Amino acid sequence: MEGRNEKELQEVTLLGNQGVKYNYDYDPAVLESFVNKHPENDYFVKFNCPEFTSLCPKTGQPDFATIYISYVPDNLLVESKSLKLYLLSFRNHGDFHEDCVNIIMKDLIKLMDPKYIEVWGKFTPRGGISIDPYCNYGKEGTKWEGMAEKRLLWHDMYPEKIDNR
Amino acid sequence: MEGRNEKELQEVTLLGNQGVKYNYDYDPAVLESFVNKHPENDYFVKFNCPEFTSLCPKTGQPDFATIYISYVPDNLLVESKSLKLYLLSFRNHGDFHEDCVNIIMKDLIKLMDPKYIEVWGKFTPRGGISIDPYCNYGKEGTKWEGMAEKRLLWHDMYPEKIDNR
Amino acid sequence: MEGRNEKELQEVTLLGNQGVKYNYDYDPAVLESFVNKHPENDYFVKFNCPEFTSLCPKTGQPDFATIYISYVPDNLLVESKSLKLYLLSFRNHGDFHEDCVNIIMKDLIKLMDPKYIEVWGKFTPRGGISIDPYCNYGKEGTKWEGMAEKRLLWHDMYPEKIDNR
Amino acid sequence: MEGRNEKELQEVTLLGNQGVKYNYDYDPAVLESFVNKHPENDYFVKFNCPEFTSLCPKTGQPDFATIYISYVPDNLLVESKSLKLYLLSFRNHGDFHEDCVNIIMKDLIKLMDPKYIEVWGKFTPRGGISIDPYCNYGKEGTKWEGMAEKRLLWHDMYPEKIDNR
Amino acid sequence: MEGRNEKELQEVTLLGNQGVKYNYDYDPAVLESFVNKHPENDYFVKFNCPEFTSLCPKTGQPDFATIYISYVPDNLLVESKSLKLYLLSFRNHGDFHEDCVNIIMKDLIKLMDPKYIEVWGKFTPRGGISIDPYCNYGKEGTKWEGMAEKRLLWHDMYPEKIDNR
Amino acid sequence: MEGRNEKELQEVTLLGNQGVKYNYDYDPAVLESFVNKHPENDYFVKFNCPEFTSLCPKTGQPDFATIYISYVPDNLLVESKSLKLYLLSFRNHGDFHEDCVNIIMKDLIKLMDPKYIEVWGKFTPRGGISIDPYCNYGKEGTKWEGMAEKRLLWHDMYPEKIDNR
Amino acid sequence: MEGRNEKELQEVTLLGNQGVKYNYDYDPAVLESFVNKHPENDYFVKFNCPEFTSLCPKTGQPDFATIYISYVPDNLLVESKSLKLYLLSFRNHGDFHEDCVNIIMKDLIKLMDPKYIEVWGKFTPRGGISIDPYCNYGKEGTKWEGMAEKRLLWHDMYPEKIDNR
Amino acid sequence: MEGRNEKELQEVTLLGNQGVKYNYDYDPAVLESFVNKHPENDYFVKFNCPEFTSLCPKTGQPDFATIYISYVPDNLLVESKSLKLYLLSFRNHGDFHEDCVNIIMKDLIKLMDPKYIEVWGKFTPRGGISIDPYCNYGKEGTKWEGMAEKRLLWHDMYPEKIDNR
Amino acid sequence: MEGRNEKELQEVTLLGNQGVKYNYDYDPAVLESFVNKHPENDYFVKFNCPEFTSLCPKTGQPDFATIYISYVPDNLLVESKSLKLYLLSFRNHGDFHEDCVNIIMKDLIKLMDPKYIEVWGKFTPRGGISIDPYCNYGKEGTKWEGMAEKRLLWHDMYPEKIDNR
Amino acid sequence: MEGRNEKELQEVTLLGNQGVKYNYDYDPAVLESFVNKHPENDYFVKFNCPEFTSLCPKTGQPDFATIYISYVPDNLLVESKSLKLYLLSFRNHGDFHEDCVNIIMKDLIKLMDPKYIEVWGKFTPRGGISIDPYCNYGKEGTKWEGMAEKRLLWHDMYPEKIDNR
Ligand SMILES: [Ca+2]
Ligand SMILES: [Ca+2]
Ligand SMILES: [Ca+2]
Ligand SMILES: [Ca+2]
Ligand SMILES: [Ca+2]
Ligand SMILES: [Ca+2]
Ligand SMILES: [Ca+2]
Ligand SMILES: [Ca+2]
Ligand SMILES: [Ca+2]
Ligand SMILES: [Ca+2]
Ligand SMILES: [Ca+2]
Ligand SMILES: [Ca+2]
Ligand SMILES: [Ca+2]
Ligand SMILES: [Ca+2]
Ligand SMILES: [Ca+2]
Ligand SMILES: [Ca+2]
Repeated sequence: MEGRNEKELQEVTLLGNQGVKYNYDYDPAVLESFVNKHPENDYFVKFNCPEFTSLCPKTGQPDFATIYISYVPDNLLVESKSLKLYLLSFRNHGDFHEDCVNIIMKDLIKLMDPKYIEVWGKFTPRGGISIDPYCNYGKEGTKWEGMAEKRLLWHDMYPEKIDNR
Repeated sequence: MEGRNEKELQEVTLLGNQGVKYNYDYDPAVLESFVNKHPENDYFVKFNCPEFTSLCPKTGQPDFATIYISYVPDNLLVESKSLKLYLLSFRNHGDFHEDCVNIIMKDLIKLMDPKYIEVWGKFTPRGGISIDPYCNYGKEGTKWEGMAEKRLLWHDMYPEKIDNR
Repeated sequence: MEGRNEKELQEVTLLGNQGVKYNYDYDPAVLESFVNKHPENDYFVKFNCPEFTSLCPKTGQPDFATIYISYVPDNLLVESKSLKLYLLSFRNHGDFHEDCVNIIMKDLIKLMDPKYIEVWGKFTPRGGISIDPYCNYGKEGTKWEGMAEKRLLWHDMYPEKIDNR
Repeated sequence: MEGRNEKELQEVTLLGNQGVKYNYDYDPAVLESFVNKHPENDYFVKFNCPEFTSLCPKTGQPDFATIYISYVPDNLLVESKSLKLYLLSFRNHGDFHEDCVNIIMKDLIKLMDPKYIEVWGKFTPRGGISIDPYCNYGKEGTKWEGMAEKRLLWHDMYPEKIDNR
Repeated sequence: MEGRNEKELQEVTLLGNQGVKYNYDYDPAVLESFVNKHPENDYFVKFNCPEFTSLCPKTGQPDFATIYISYVPDNLLVESKSLKLYLLSFRNHGDFHEDCVNIIMKDLIKLMDPKYIEVWGKFTPRGGISIDPYCNYGKEGTKWEGMAEKRLLWHDMYPEKIDNR
Repeated sequence: MEGRNEKELQEVTLLGNQGVKYNYDYDPAVLESFVNKHPENDYFVKFNCPEFTSLCPKTGQPDFATIYISYVPDNLLVESKSLKLYLLSFRNHGDFHEDCVNIIMKDLIKLMDPKYIEVWGKFTPRGGISIDPYCNYGKEGTKWEGMAEKRLLWHDMYPEKIDNR
Repeated sequence: MEGRNEKELQEVTLLGNQGVKYNYDYDPAVLESFVNKHPENDYFVKFNCPEFTSLCPKTGQPDFATIYISYVPDNLLVESKSLKLYLLSFRNHGDFHEDCVNIIMKDLIKLMDPKYIEVWGKFTPRGGISIDPYCNYGKEGTKWEGMAEKRLLWHDMYPEKIDNR
Repeated sequence: MEGRNEKELQEVTLLGNQGVKYNYDYDPAVLESFVNKHPENDYFVKFNCPEFTSLCPKTGQPDFATIYISYVPDNLLVESKSLKLYLLSFRNHGDFHEDCVNIIMKDLIKLMDPKYIEVWGKFTPRGGISIDPYCNYGKEGTKWEGMAEKRLLWHDMYPEKIDNR
Repeated sequence: MEGRNEKELQEVTLLGNQGVKYNYDYDPAVLESFVNKHPENDYFVKFNCPEFTSLCPKTGQPDFATIYISYVPDNLLVESKSLKLYLLSFRNHGDFHEDCVNIIMKDLIKLMDPKYIEVWGKFTPRGGISIDPYCNYGKEGTKWEGMAEKRLLWHDMYPEKIDNR
Repeated sequence: MEGRNEKELQEVTLLGNQGVKYNYDYDPAVLESFVNKHPENDYFVKFNCPEFTSLCPKTGQPDFATIYISYVPDNLLVESKSLKLYLLSFRNHGDFHEDCVNIIMKDLIKLMDPKYIEVWGKFTPRGGISIDPYCNYGKEGTKWEGMAEKRLLWHDMYPEKIDNR
């Protein structure tokens, strides 16, 4: 099986592009997608993003999180460098943890129309308590909607050990 | 999507508020909630609280625990600084481990009327044995009630390794 | 919600009691229970007991284990100090690993008549091999009996890594 | 409940027996069983065996593995010292990883006729790749057969992290 | 039970063969299989492959991953040294992470026609984000097809902790 | 060599004493010592104290730390239950982290006049930063004074990994 | 020994102060100090700062690090909330890793004139390689200057394991 | 170089001896030694003993510890099975942690007259605090005496992380 | 203190440069340096490089390692992207582990003329054994030469735990 | 710098040699060396050998260990495949742990005449106790002799945590 050829890579404009500008105001327009070459078989793609930072909407203080994004593509995949730029655009944006995680999921649904997607944020503590919101989604009217409901039902039966150190 | 604006943040009175008083007698009245902006999609919020301490009701000796709280919001979310103040109010309160965990869950149900909630306490040992109570709840007459029953049925199939060190 | 009052604590005679004698011959009579104050909601209680020791019935050599006990109470809970004294009473008692774990479960069923209970022993190796017996039980004729069957069916799909060091 | 008495221990001939000879040629005849005293309640017994070594059938080079054996006994249990001697008998025996794991399971089925059994071998790498075969079995015509099928279906959803160091 | 004899090992030509040439251009023809001697019982075989490297199709920069391959054999097993040579053949091959994982699975299906197979790649980060694609497959028209669907539905409920260090 | 006899244990009044009162105001008077029976050989005693809590002197908010205390006794050892009561007396006491650690060391010097002592506090973070003060002391005019200087010089060359989770 | 009184806390203006503004341009003027109450005994103070972020001076891309700061105070200590605000001021500041670490050390020397100080930055990888600069300083003409030289000589004999995950 | 022959093994009477009796009253007479065959080169032998248990001299409650014993032999080595029997003899013996560790060292000095020896006990917590005594010794009038002093001076610069779980 | 300005960054030609070509034949010429702005204070820079791969000089089989490089700069620092390109140039280069590590050190000495440098390679196993060479260097005729000798003398007193998994 | 050429590799006869015979009787003659190409700079080479097994000289029972070998070469290095064959030759050899470690060191000294060498064996437990012998050597009459003495003096100040699991 051949690797991706130049034509297939045309739609990917940011990867390896030196002239990229970093936008630190929330900007979903930076997201780019490319075509899924294996549509006959459903599969998962996970992004591990331990370098997420945003601002507290009330105090302006920075917040930090690791964001885990997992999805089952339909026809499109999100290009990873554009995802990086999108997440960077939260750097000077103020919102609650619970809101950030929902917004990221909604923007990726709009971009890729995936069969299934979930986003889990694990933030560092403020005042001795840390917050980890998790949201998910399955395409309505398909079996993926039931999958989302099931994965929510069984989410995180084993919370990781946290001691704030 | 815009971040939370000032109007949306009005109900949040403790976050960033310097004049807050710390009450070390059990006080559920300190809990505050705010509005869920993503009600169209169910999601989880988890609080990791490794700085919980209460007193033994019989000997008066301090007990220590990490408390994990996870819930699926309905219309309201608990504000995290008020949750901190609430948990601090157990500092000079005497009760058994099993009772503390149940009480915390009941107070949060009263505050938020969540679809689903669970509370897991992991205490440090006394006399070589440590106790980890876990309780959960789903809104009666809804599918969330069945979720609570299922998650209890499958709770903690893999107890974490404990060696008291 | 008030903490446990003196009257509720009357049945608890060993906790904080300085005159306690340690019995190192197997003695289930030392077990004490107290009343469950949250019967309207099923919940789990887990005991982590990493200081268990008994004797080999054939060679007399000491054995060591961590014992994990988890149960869903019905009307009674086992008091943790009496549980400690009970487990200590195996110190000079000789029995196979598989037998110890079953005996502990049966004695606790007799004491508390719980809805559900399970006991998992993780022993240190002899001759390069370690043995980890696990037994469970659900009250007959109730849904808890099916829960026991299900948890046995799915027990320990991920054995912990063991290298004898 | 009394511990195992002398009569019950008569069938156990190898445990604590100084005159034992170590046979390093594959020898299933060394396996010994003893009677299950808790047949009214199904339970699991797991053996952790991190000191397994055999030979490559083609090159004669030694292989090393940790073997995990879990079973639900029917009327018999395998005695652990005889299990040790049995596993030692692979020391100068040549076979593929996939074959060793299946053979061990078949020999234990023959010995104990258990309700359920599974064997998982985790070998060290050769040429940068390590192999972990897993097989299981449930007594035919019983519910345990379905259990084996289910546990195979859900086997190892979370492969442990391996970096060859 | 006897180990593999010489006749059974004839089809295995690469294992222990000193004259092997390493091909660093993508070459599925190097894969070899041998006969499953335990077809009466379904079982899993897992390969841990932490030394995988390929090239980025756009920038030519090397990528690194640990690849986990698990399958239930039908009549054939893949020989592990040939698998090593196959994975090495990606060394100078350019393709996206998502494509590599799908291609590996398809080539192994073609070789062995297994009942079930899954491939999980865990790559190192570029630009602060790492990508972990996972695909699976069950033989069409058999119960294994449903197994693949179920395992995808429940894939990776607990993403491993990633901090890019 | 005989164990401690009753006479030797007379000076130990708190250990096993049920009537003990817990004082949550800073109270160094609760500390008790007993005689060193091995004065011919210098040795270390370390206390691991992961259940320390005090208050912030400015905001009144609770602080949490693990305190490690190590010393070389001269003629006296500190009794561990009295040490527990002493550390508990910081529960409602307000002071900076740096001050708590110095005060604990000074009180123990006053009690035992040890040859050498050191105290290391590891606190949980506030505002994303955690503070770990360390102080030590060697008896003036002896070789132990030089030991303190040397151990300070080489203190903590390998700060433990901290990620606030 | 009394805790810090109000007069001693006057110089601390930022701790618990709700009106604080967050400055995201490099600003050493925000640093505040307070008086060392234990000058008769040298001791260490360490800050763990896992939430540091700055910008690449050439590409503008964000960098992330954990910064460890350890010092032996002379007459002054740095107040931890002012340290937080200072480190936050690097958020939109562009500089190389090696430069950031040196600058932080120099600014703290200027503020506190400490006997000894060291700063260790551990950054996340770019292009598969991560950089960890470490600098230190001892007051010139004192024994602390020799301490700095010795600690540099023996710095990091055991690099932590890094696999970029 | 030949392995130990029968004659060299004559002095070893307990290893592999089935008739051994377990004495649970403190009994140093059970210790056995054998001849050092490599006296021309100094070397270390360490025993890891995680199955130590004794009694509290005041309350009679069992204590548990891991004991680490390291020594440089002179002409004799302690035989490991006799060491096991010796440590077992503390099972019903009451003494303080600090005393147990010193006594073990003194008995081994008496047996082997080693060049150097050290004993480190790490006990499980009582009342939230655990105690880890460490003692050492070098043969008087030799360089080993200075070694003991140096190792005490630098003992345990990095206390292991303890959280009582 | 200002960040690096454009003029100071002129000598850095590869960082952020999209047109970079990857050379997979050993090529030390790709290394670039830039000026040390903090020459008044000695400091360490460490590179963690877990993505190193080369070939076996005899069999042509790929080898994999994590390389740790630490140095004290004199007037020059190595630019990290050029270091990446340099390490990539070993991808199709055949040499023994011991030789690779020495060559990397010599090339960096030639580039930067550092005061001190060390290189530690940790390779994955072949045939069950892994090799970790370590070399270092201090500028001749300076105190750094003695530092190299001392660090070699005390190198790796605590080998990390290796189990080939 | 060029890689090893064919001529330099002539003395290496076992690496990549398919015809190698595995000898399971102690056989130091199998060891091979090759020339050190970097004699101008002293450096360390470490072998991690987690697959060592020998027999107990008294009972014939197999023993297992991880062996760590570190040395500073003079003119010769030991070839790693010959080292593997040498260690394999202990497979059916009976000797005490303390003897094995000394013998390995002596054989390697005889082969390579290194400047410095050390061997550390970490065995699995028998009867609840594990033994870790460590020996080292420096060439007599050189500075390396003093190095050996120093490294022995400071050996293993931090015994790894052992719990026999
Ligand atoms: Ca922790
Ligand atoms: Ca633990
Ligand atoms: Ca622990
Ligand atoms: Ca282990
Ligand atoms: Ca590993
Ligand atoms: Ca490992
Ligand atoms: Ca981390
Ligand atoms: Ca990591
Ligand atoms: Ca952490
Ligand atoms: Ca943590
Ligand atoms: Ca890592
Ligand atoms: Ca790793
Ligand atoms: Ca712990
Ligand atoms: Ca491992
Ligand atoms: Ca362990
Ligand atoms: Ca372990």
